[in-house]
Amino acid sequence: MTVELICVGTELLLGNIVNTNAAYISEKCAMLGLSMFYQSVVGDNERRLEELLKTAKGRSDVIILCGGLGPTQDDLTKETAAKVMGRPLVEDKRARKEIEEFMAKRSRNVTENNWKQALVPKDSKVLYNPNGTAPGIIIKEGEQRVILLPGPPNELIPMFEEQVYPYLHAIQPETICSKMVKLCGVGESSAETKILDLIEGQTNPTVAPYAKTGEVHLRLTAKAASEAEAFQLIVPVEEELKKRFGNLIYTDDPTVTLEMAVYELLKAHNLTVTTAESCTGGLLAGRLINVPGISTYLKEGYVTYSNEAKEKLLGVPAEILRQHGAVSPQTAEAMAEGGAKAAGADICVAVTGIAGPDGGTEDKPVGLVYMSCYCRGKLHTEKNQYSGSRSKIREYSVASALTLLRRAILEH
Amino acid sequence: MTVELICVGTELLLGNIVNTNAAYISEKCAMLGLSMFYQSVVGDNERRLEELLKTAKGRSDVIILCGGLGPTQDDLTKETAAKVMGRPLVEDKRARKEIEEFMAKRSRNVTENNWKQALVPKDSKVLYNPNGTAPGIIIKEGEQRVILLPGPPNELIPMFEEQVYPYLHAIQPETICSKMVKLCGVGESSAETKILDLIEGQTNPTVAPYAKTGEVHLRLTAKAASEAEAFQLIVPVEEELKKRFGNLIYTDDPTVTLEMAVYELLKAHNLTVTTAESCTGGLLAGRLINVPGISTYLKEGYVTYSNEAKEKLLGVPAEILRQHGAVSPQTAEAMAEGGAKAAGADICVAVTGIAGPDGGTEDKPVGLVYMSCYCRGKLHTEKNQYSGSRSKIREYSVASALTLLRRAILEH
Repeated sequence: MTVELICVGTELLLGNIVNTNAAYISEKCAMLGLSMFYQSVVGDNERRLEELLKTAKGRSDVIILCGGLGPTQDDLTKETAAKVMGRPLVEDKRARKEIEEFMAKRSRNVTENNWKQALVPKDSKVLYNPNGTAPGIIIKEGEQRVILLPGPPNELIPMFEEQVYPYLHAIQPETICSKMVKLCGVGESSAETKILDLIEGQTNPTVAPYAKTGEVHLRLTAKAASEAEAFQLIVPVEEELKKRFGNLIYTDDPTVTLEMAVYELLKAHNLTVTTAESCTGGLLAGRLINVPGISTYLKEGYVTYSNEAKEKLLGVPAEILRQHGAVSPQTAEAMAEGGAKAAGADICVAVTGIAGPDGGTEDKPVGLVYMSCYCRGKLHTEKNQYSGSRSKIREYSVASALTLLRRAILEH
Repeated sequence: MTVELICVGTELLLGNIVNTNAAYISEKCAMLGLSMFYQSVVGDNERRLEELLKTAKGRSDVIILCGGLGPTQDDLTKETAAKVMGRPLVEDKRARKEIEEFMAKRSRNVTENNWKQALVPKDSKVLYNPNGTAPGIIIKEGEQRVILLPGPPNELIPMFEEQVYPYLHAIQPETICSKMVKLCGVGESSAETKILDLIEGQTNPTVAPYAKTGEVHLRLTAKAASEAEAFQLIVPVEEELKKRFGNLIYTDDPTVTLEMAVYELLKAHNLTVTTAESCTGGLLAGRLINVPGISTYLKEGYVTYSNEAKEKLLGVPAEILRQHGAVSPQTAEAMAEGGAKAAGADICVAVTGIAGPDGGTEDKPVGLVYMSCYCRGKLHTEKNQYSGSRSKIREYSVASALTLLRRAILEH
């Protein structure tokens, strides 16, 4: 069964707000096993909305519209949908009563245009709205459904969870299940080359790669009659991915981030960690501390942006800084070793580089970043050359540092 | 001139990611005075993309496509656009060379599928991409333009800012000028109520509010025959905003960020600063270090996530921690004062709070964050209560801490 989403609102076309409703509804529809092929955004304009709705009617089983159900004159989603579906608008007694009560509760006066919200297309299913004055509506014509939902997320989400999801689940025979196999320390194209046969050969489950900063995510999606069956289809393909990528895979759980995977390793090996950051300037510690509970393993971190700070806080010998410079493998290693000692931690990840845009030289260009991970006496040191903006270079450095930290623990 | 946006990516249709590109591009197009009537999202599917592109060709002057320019098999935006526009794909020497260099710099092997990214539609304008291997493309046919951009925001945004925006600005007949008046330390709704008369009354220039994390941006957009005239129209409205918001305005330059404004203040007053972070765990230092040149004023920063670290690195008395707890105004002030002393800096901003999801109590709920700024002997302390996810709470804390730092310098 196919579903199509139409979001109505000029504020979306002007970029005043981000369309989080689209992501929310899309994810729910994917969970329901509905195939969404199109999403559109259109302003509060009758002609364009009508044209879009007619197109959708010609190609999708379920059409979800959200927004434009308000009381004002420029809210015309309902009027347009009723017109396209050839249904007159009739007043729904209960909707009118609920609007009355809703406004009374907030001691607000019901203005004339509020009653407009009690009108619904004839013979449609009304989705009553405890969180606002605009009821949702389901218009069924043969096997096709047009579903109208209010725009504000605090009205749309409860209405979808409690009324729309169960309704769609009841009419949808198939289930879709997804797994996200996440890799670090490998580029998108080399990852894809490794599994081209799977990407091209697989139809159920499908394998789709996504490039993230310093990571590659592979989404496995299977369709079946039941969730259990769908997951059964995924198992052998995931096994194959594990064979091919081994340790580069850090999770198959879409909710697990790289820093969470590192946290689990710290916990499993009961190792404490600290950070010594120059060009990343706190972003690495900041990412590790995204993980609730990290406090047991990360007690402190150092932002040592200047040479003085590297000497003072990490005990980097002035000699090393003078001889090799702040951006050198020697300094990175001295930072890592010194940081671990200063914090009394088992591990210290140190990053030093040239984030730019200035400060680059012939032999030390912008984007050159050295990182070293000290882990219980052993040093793992890495040279990276990034390009792009200052923030991009710093983001990539953080991702590589987390990957290096993960590798150091695994090899520990 | 009308513009239409088509975002390509199955991950959007599955709700794996929120479509922030759409909001970004829409906002920029609004700034350019381009009228956007349609946004669509379609998956990595040639037939549907082709159909959508043909529809767009029939109704819009500028068509922007983003996503689907990667090296993998399921990236087919470029191939489809070339087909619809009737242009063969030819290899762009410079693009090929830049891909080679990009991969070499990262000591990654160029796999066969990378070369696919060096192919561009014949006679098109190539937008070279320093942040990735997929170049952007502009195909001009008569007065119509089809613009292809890479999907990852850290590639798309710089490319749009540096290459697409100037290109579109040059072909836009009306002269549109806009200024972005940026406020910190005020909520969106209270900012809006302060200027409702301007938002509703103004037609040229228009005043549009945008809510950002811990900030409100007011965009003033004027249309006129010449740039000078347009700016003349903006002047009185901006003056009025300055009257109403005063010091809450930190810039009227769209390229200036809050951390850049803080940096300029540090420079102007020649003050050094350090950071003492608990729940933000390095993100505050990380944001300050976004600014190139900050090293003169920020030498080091402390991530003191544990009580031990607060005592050891900042000299927070154990007594205060025991009596008032780590999340208290007393601890925040001791962190600020101690941090400044430890770093030998004029200023120290300290943040301590409960980012959640756990650790909240009846009288100290999740989202409670104390921050204190020590500035040359004077303490500025603030209590904040945020709601939302752990990361939202930390992001808001960083924005408030920068705002507090700014206020402390201004009052210094």
